[in-house]
Amino acid sequence: MFKQILGNVNSNVPLVHAITNYVTVNDCANIILASGGSPIMADDIAEAGEITSICSALIINIGTLNERTIKSMITAGKKANVLKVPVILDPVGAGASALRNETIFTLLKEVNFAVIRGNISEIKFIASGSSNAQGVDASASDAVTVDSLDSVVALAQELSKATGAVIAITGATDIVADSEKAYIIKNGHPMMSRVTGTGCMLTAVIGSFVGANKAHVLEATATAVAAMGLCGELAYQRLCELDGGTNTFRMLLIDYMSKINADLLKDGAKIESR
Amino acid sequence: MFKQILGNVNSNVPLVHAITNYVTVNDCANIILASGGSPIMADDIAEAGEITSICSALIINIGTLNERTIKSMITAGKKANVLKVPVILDPVGAGASALRNETIFTLLKEVNFAVIRGNISEIKFIASGSSNAQGVDASASDAVTVDSLDSVVALAQELSKATGAVIAITGATDIVADSEKAYIIKNGHPMMSRVTGTGCMLTAVIGSFVGANKAHVLEATATAVAAMGLCGELAYQRLCELDGGTNTFRMLLIDYMSKINADLLKDGAKIESR
Amino acid sequence: MFKQILGNVNSNVPLVHAITNYVTVNDCANIILASGGSPIMADDIAEAGEITSICSALIINIGTLNERTIKSMITAGKKANVLKVPVILDPVGAGASALRNETIFTLLKEVNFAVIRGNISEIKFIASGSSNAQGVDASASDAVTVDSLDSVVALAQELSKATGAVIAITGATDIVADSEKAYIIKNGHPMMSRVTGTGCMLTAVIGSFVGANKAHVLEATATAVAAMGLCGELAYQRLCELDGGTNTFRMLLIDYMSKINADLLKDGAKIESR
Repeated sequence: MFKQILGNVNSNVPLVHAITNYVTVNDCANIILASGGSPIMADDIAEAGEITSICSALIINIGTLNERTIKSMITAGKKANVLKVPVILDPVGAGASALRNETIFTLLKEVNFAVIRGNISEIKFIASGSSNAQGVDASASDAVTVDSLDSVVALAQELSKATGAVIAITGATDIVADSEKAYIIKNGHPMMSRVTGTGCMLTAVIGSFVGANKAHVLEATATAVAAMGLCGELAYQRLCELDGGTNTFRMLLIDYMSKINADLLKDGAKIESR
Repeated sequence: MFKQILGNVNSNVPLVHAITNYVTVNDCANIILASGGSPIMADDIAEAGEITSICSALIINIGTLNERTIKSMITAGKKANVLKVPVILDPVGAGASALRNETIFTLLKEVNFAVIRGNISEIKFIASGSSNAQGVDASASDAVTVDSLDSVVALAQELSKATGAVIAITGATDIVADSEKAYIIKNGHPMMSRVTGTGCMLTAVIGSFVGANKAHVLEATATAVAAMGLCGELAYQRLCELDGGTNTFRMLLIDYMSKINADLLKDGAKIESR
Repeated sequence: MFKQILGNVNSNVPLVHAITNYVTVNDCANIILASGGSPIMADDIAEAGEITSICSALIINIGTLNERTIKSMITAGKKANVLKVPVILDPVGAGASALRNETIFTLLKEVNFAVIRGNISEIKFIASGSSNAQGVDASASDAVTVDSLDSVVALAQELSKATGAVIAITGATDIVADSEKAYIIKNGHPMMSRVTGTGCMLTAVIGSFVGANKAHVLEATATAVAAMGLCGELAYQRLCELDGGTNTFRMLLIDYMSKINADLLKDGAKIESR
């Protein structure tokens, strides 16, 4: 699957529109380029829909949402649905404020998403209306364990059934599922949580991969998740050689996304389906 | 003092809310993580107060202020005061425009700050209503010298008395003072002025350290200032080995914040109290 | 010419005001510093003109324009014209949306630009009202070739005559022209297109160089273009030694701007005039 997914990215060079937060936007743009896509960011309501219409995918990331950009997200999302441009939602900080919560439910009502990617606390909040989230990181009490894995897969599949979206729950163990199939992915490194925006960056890569593989959203998402995790592992190996810190790690993570290929993924992906 | 301050950061993992400029926000988020905290940025008035209520500290940085975010700063600042969440002010470019000047005085009137950190020109402006500031850098004519050190310490202590805030004046020589005690810190490297946002990043680290040490605001601020300066020195040493330029230095600066510990600080801090 | 242009930057340390997009703003600020200038970003209409009045150059980059900042661009641009502060336009994504197109023509009507820098598709759009642009990258069908070079130079010179601005068209081959003279520059490396914002960064460097060389706008712009291209070449050479990826390249690009000097430029510039 990796070869086909990556091959389509390289041959299509998907243009990815991101309405995203200003904290991690540069890293998102650079990792879209590194992954083989081309980024464009346009959040004014006067052009958000029009820019979406020339793109292969739309990312909606609510990390620094505001009254103005929320309207642009909805407008762009609806336009994308009309044009069958896949829309990826990153519900950053779901559960942390009423504004975020209301925005998420408005978006879910107004827009059909191809993929929803979040940490376990964010996805739990979407599925149930409550979570143990504190800020933008997953709560320790929500962590996916060997014991809870089956129930988390079930949660993802139920949410997929309810929304029609592929659900990606990422953390130490990642779950990527639609209503019928699930991938369990165990790539990644704890150092990824010491860099801001690794979640946002993964969502950006999903935008790139899904934009070039519209007929294979589940596989494209799983490939993006495995690729990002593997980049984290490779970056950590290299970091140890360089004796670097967290910001060198950030750079290496994007570096490896620009170097990843089907062979590396075939060798390094720790993925199983069920 | 270093061991206790850093130990509290590591055990508390303070969640730090920053309403800050979009120029340096990514570096601020990454250095908060590197310092042992967790960042969240939320500038819409509909959630700024609510996000503050789940945080250990609030940073208000006026670097790219606008009409919309100024209101959010005031709302979040007032909420922080009610909840006894320490608020740190970075008056970027104080003296450079009427909008900045008015905003600073409005903020000082409406919000009680735990710490105010700026360069000498910015702090002089706040203390006296005038300075020699040009843009966002300190004026050469305002520079802290051996001759002016006593008067600058006195300025800081008077401003602390007037505002109730710990005052941090940073430059080649740093002064951190409340109305009773002052620390003089001589860490740092001139290369730090060739990277955008080293001031903003220091303010971010102060947010992290003060958020985890609410009963020791003066010591937490002095520790943050010494740590940042020492990171600059260590980054410069490593930069010479790598033969790098200013952007490698930027990365190394954040790297060293992720590696700093009480032993390194004890050996490297050039700090005296008076 | 290089020695004089760079010498003026180093002795003047031009303060450069940029109303620019939030995707690449940190890299723009850092490369302005690396090039010898000092950056300030202020996009609220209440201060945009006043900040311009203390600066040596104003950059207007429409990458993430919105209703609020468009007004600030016009206000700051008009103020700059009154004060004879040179204004540099980066028409990011010209041709990609009605909002961008209208904004560009409004800006061209309301503000006199000293320099307009874009890729070939963006400049073609400005010159003719149409292009083959898709997103923010130049269209392959617009590429400057040996065969089309003469006509592209003619296009630049006509647009310069019509607008009074120096026109910089950048890509594999760069053209910098006013109505009387043109420079053809062949520095650069394809890796530059795999990093977001290399165009924005070049515009930022042009702001720095032109701000310190107001009497020599054509030469300052050509020097900035050659310098940026040479930095790309040097960064690529170093990247190969380090076996790095696209984000290491981004860092090295800014690093080399902090290391460039007249001797390196004299040896490395591939520039001819006609």
